[in-house]
Amino acid sequence: MYDATKQSLTPFFEPRSVAIVGASGTPGKAGYEAIRNLQANAYPGHIYPVNPRGGEILGLPVMASIGTLPDGVDVAIIILPAEATPQAVRECASRGIGHVALMAGGFAEVDETGVEAQNELLTIIRETGIRVLGPNISGHASTPQSYTSAFFPLGKIRRGTVSVIAQTGNFLTHTMRYILTGEHFGVARVIGLGNKVDVDEVDALEYLADDPETSAIIMYLESFKRPARFLSVAREVSRRKPIVMLKSGMTEAGKQAAVAHTAAMATEDRLVDGMLRQSGIVRLEEYTDLILAAKALSMVPLPKGNRVGFLAPSGAMLVVLTDLCVRLGLEVPTVTDETVARLHEISPPYIRMRNPVDIWASATVNGVEFGYREGMEALLKDPTIDAVVPILMLTRDTGIPPFDFIVDLAQRYPEKPILVGFSGDADCMEECKAFLEPRNIPTFPVLEQPFKALAILARCHEAMLGNH
Amino acid sequence: MYDATKQSLTPFFEPRSVAIVGASGTPGKAGYEAIRNLQANAYPGHIYPVNPRGGEILGLPVMASIGTLPDGVDVAIIILPAEATPQAVRECASRGIGHVALMAGGFAEVDETGVEAQNELLTIIRETGIRVLGPNISGHASTPQSYTSAFFPLGKIRRGTVSVIAQTGNFLTHTMRYILTGEHFGVARVIGLGNKVDVDEVDALEYLADDPETSAIIMYLESFKRPARFLSVAREVSRRKPIVMLKSGMTEAGKQAAVAHTAAMATEDRLVDGMLRQSGIVRLEEYTDLILAAKALSMVPLPKGNRVGFLAPSGAMLVVLTDLCVRLGLEVPTVTDETVARLHEISPPYIRMRNPVDIWASATVNGVEFGYREGMEALLKDPTIDAVVPILMLTRDTGIPPFDFIVDLAQRYPEKPILVGFSGDADCMEECKAFLEPRNIPTFPVLEQPFKALAILARCHEAMLGNH
Repeated sequence: MYDATKQSLTPFFEPRSVAIVGASGTPGKAGYEAIRNLQANAYPGHIYPVNPRGGEILGLPVMASIGTLPDGVDVAIIILPAEATPQAVRECASRGIGHVALMAGGFAEVDETGVEAQNELLTIIRETGIRVLGPNISGHASTPQSYTSAFFPLGKIRRGTVSVIAQTGNFLTHTMRYILTGEHFGVARVIGLGNKVDVDEVDALEYLADDPETSAIIMYLESFKRPARFLSVAREVSRRKPIVMLKSGMTEAGKQAAVAHTAAMATEDRLVDGMLRQSGIVRLEEYTDLILAAKALSMVPLPKGNRVGFLAPSGAMLVVLTDLCVRLGLEVPTVTDETVARLHEISPPYIRMRNPVDIWASATVNGVEFGYREGMEALLKDPTIDAVVPILMLTRDTGIPPFDFIVDLAQRYPEKPILVGFSGDADCMEECKAFLEPRNIPTFPVLEQPFKALAILARCHEAMLGNH
Repeated sequence: MYDATKQSLTPFFEPRSVAIVGASGTPGKAGYEAIRNLQANAYPGHIYPVNPRGGEILGLPVMASIGTLPDGVDVAIIILPAEATPQAVRECASRGIGHVALMAGGFAEVDETGVEAQNELLTIIRETGIRVLGPNISGHASTPQSYTSAFFPLGKIRRGTVSVIAQTGNFLTHTMRYILTGEHFGVARVIGLGNKVDVDEVDALEYLADDPETSAIIMYLESFKRPARFLSVAREVSRRKPIVMLKSGMTEAGKQAAVAHTAAMATEDRLVDGMLRQSGIVRLEEYTDLILAAKALSMVPLPKGNRVGFLAPSGAMLVVLTDLCVRLGLEVPTVTDETVARLHEISPPYIRMRNPVDIWASATVNGVEFGYREGMEALLKDPTIDAVVPILMLTRDTGIPPFDFIVDLAQRYPEKPILVGFSGDADCMEECKAFLEPRNIPTFPVLEQPFKALAILARCHEAMLGNH
């Protein structure tokens, strides 16, 4: 659908060879870590370090200049100070390199000199047609091609099905570190936008719209470069693929911080809100919601509606979590008589069974696995329920069941997402997470998170129906 | 101030001896685990298991009946089914036991038979003057006296300075398990209210108001038994000790769940909101907020205002977290020129320094410890700042500093709370938490949590000024 964009940007994501301009032999330096990341990801293309000193870096011969690079280099990753960057871009264009990713900060987000340097980049782009990512980015990544321009030490980036468009360097620095060390999902593409002298949110969205590797799109934006076009593209794409976005600079104080950060004049927030709603983008409120959304979208299908069935080990939890569901826009429906009858069958008589399900009596009398398994299946079978959240109570003393039954239920009811929450011992939660998440059952250590994640999924489903 | 209440309830919290009515020799049964909990807490008083079968349980001789108990038993923990509970209470009163804690559910929260049994308890209370906790509780606890009536396997309950009033059994079951396994703070008293046939939220609050072991009060309520009296007591107490409360049943659907849970007719929520505000109680929204509040109130002093200085390793984080602060009612003030000058001294020139502080450039150039230490101290010294939140970026590759400098800063600036957040590697966050929290520096694994906790503390401070 967006063929021109696809064609124009593909070398960024499927480069057959890459030059690292500003390569370094010093561990810890960006020009060294970028090469190390490529090697850690087993990038199969050619890597050409460029540094006037020559020699060898990480086993690769160093080219003395951009001019001496061989023909056919697809992408240059330019890791030079801001003042040296425009000249390097010009040399890349002269050498026939069509795509560059510019890492340096110090452009329009900092001072007048930076504004001038950024204007020079714009001139070069106009004159040469070179495509530019950045400047002021922490890189980009394309896991299906084992490729990244990230210069922050990351190691192997886990492959996944969601892609990220980020007007921040976080996603290929500490946030990716957290995802790689604390989570089990991966990413398909990560596109750092930075100061957006060329590639902007519209290009990135168009590219991902037609990308078969991308099933959902996670966005962090501080400003819109082409709001009208973005609106119309998003409206079309959001019916095919979920798009969630954290648009920051929502408050006056936040906007001030945004100006200091990427020289973006944050747009009036209420306008943004209406615009995103109309375009079918699910707007998030907190940074952590980006992680919740990415995890849930990576692991489970969208629910067919907003009706949740849940099980918790305490009456008080049923109450507070019902309050939470209502606040989040999730419905906690009255289930069918058949479901209620089944819930009573699996429970001792002194608990009134309904949705939400007070499951601990059954778990105590019949075993934790039996209680949760039968309770979950009763809800999964119920036609009034779109998704199921079990709050598993796990303690060493009450026993940790094998968790295969949850994987089995997810396979037998593939249309209804299961999102798992916890109460009890912290180490048992970790154990359960480590078992379930590699099997595509998302788990959430904070009690409210599975519901927050589900609410995001339900809004994505609504957006895909075009109800906006 | 509440001498009568204090005198009347003290035996619940400082019992010299305790009877377990319904003691069991079977591991896993409540009547066994209650004794095991007392032993695990090294309760120094006499423990008298009561069971008609006699014999010995966990090394203790079993009394055949309540009537054969020795004189002077302070508290009876009654772990019998609902239908047998009233008769046991009557026998306790006859034997001269003035205080009983009733564990059984199955009273007014379940059916008509339960309502009758509960009415019988009321009659006994009226006739004998016996004081009753419950029924339908998971116990109570008093760590300064190494005492608990909890029957859920807990082991040693960590001693602390906050106390909990809970109209739910969660706090001495899975929530306490989580606190004991995943957190480092402890509790002073935990008072389960259950169906409140006698001891209610007013009694509990009056007791804790004058309790020297209790510095802050955490409440979970589903209903008010004596709203007017509660309001007036809370208004007085909240100027002396912070009171935070999760009042559930906020939404219509939540109220329905509450009726099923503790037979409480949840009060119209907006009335509750106004009432709590006037009484100086800080109302919480989510269950997890109870944990955040308990942790923060356990470890740091209240800030003298709502003005936060914070440091983060990314420009985007500064923006989203400033948005968050504004939403939470925290101010992110412009710091003094002196502070700005100091921040510029510790940073390379290409970053504009202000509050919030973009600290990663300094950390990269000067080391993680130097950057955060000097940045935090600049904020702590600033008279416009009431509290400091560092978002520590910790990865194995960028280096984990020793964290003593944070403990040192907390000691040198004791009036300004420091709440620590994280980004980066999950295991590094765990390591930092394990070091800092036993030294009374609270840490929070989810990015938004230190700000949420600080906002609660700031609202507590405001309430203590009587500004409500």
